[in-house]
Amino acid sequence: MKKVFTLAATALLLGSLTSTALADGHLKQAAEARQSAMKLYAFSLGQLGAMVKGEIPYDAAAAEGAAKNLLALATLDQSAFWSAGSGSDGALGSMTRAKPEIWSTYPAVVEKSKAMVAAAEEMAAAAGTGVDGIKANIGKVGGACKACHDDFRGPKQ
Amino acid sequence: MKKVFTLAATALLLGSLTSTALADGHLKQAAEARQSAMKLYAFSLGQLGAMVKGEIPYDAAAAEGAAKNLLALATLDQSAFWSAGSGSDGALGSMTRAKPEIWSTYPAVVEKSKAMVAAAEEMAAAAGTGVDGIKANIGKVGGACKACHDDFRGPKQ
Repeated sequence: MKKVFTLAATALLLGSLTSTALADGHLKQAAEARQSAMKLYAFSLGQLGAMVKGEIPYDAAAAEGAAKNLLALATLDQSAFWSAGSGSDGALGSMTRAKPEIWSTYPAVVEKSKAMVAAAEEMAAAAGTGVDGIKANIGKVGGACKACHDDFRGPKQ
Repeated sequence: MKKVFTLAATALLLGSLTSTALADGHLKQAAEARQSAMKLYAFSLGQLGAMVKGEIPYDAAAAEGAAKNLLALATLDQSAFWSAGSGSDGALGSMTRAKPEIWSTYPAVVEKSKAMVAAAEEMAAAAGTGVDGIKANIGKVGGACKACHDDFRGPKQ
């Protein structure tokens, strides 16, 4: 992963990415972008979960930061992350677990995204008020993750 | 990378991450979070760069979305992504190129971050106005990436 990032960043900064390479790598880059966003969701949710479980001490600023990160991620413009053809039925195959239903039932997936934004908004408002604020909202956030995964993420391969 | 994300997400969602696993994986998760953020920066900047180079047609909504993504990424609370001990001089070693100077000269790195936020704000305001709006700002955004990399990212290993 580090090598991929490094190559991409270097190419972008130096303006040396050719049209051909861009076309070839387009779907892979899209899938990696959404996987990066998912990893950041998991990281921020993990911080909040660790506070709830007492694995790390509650810290209001850190909790609010993590919750606001969740909201920022949920409100990213992800349209380019989900390019047509970048599902598990396309050229990427097992590199992605994104089910074809994401595209074939569109905009159903958008409703899942809206639920995540709503849950993240409530978490962002509550997480800095105390660990109980996290507890009151973490189920809804996790449920929004799960609801989308249940419908639109395929099994491990 | 997908396997790591999948394991982390599953563990977080199911609440099955033990304290030991959390402590062991803490530094690695932090490094992966920042690498994910960097990948998303590169992806969004790549979209804008491709429009400037004419590799993809200019699209006002997509350009504004990408630019706003850059700003959202630049304003994430990244404090937990840069845990003390997660530099290339620590346990992670060559898994990260983050130089010890990030921590030893702190808060110097914060100035680099502020420059990125400022550049991203200008890009977010301009990218939707036309390809010239991107052109006018992409050098400053790329320069903000480079300025931080020059000082705080070590060589490829």
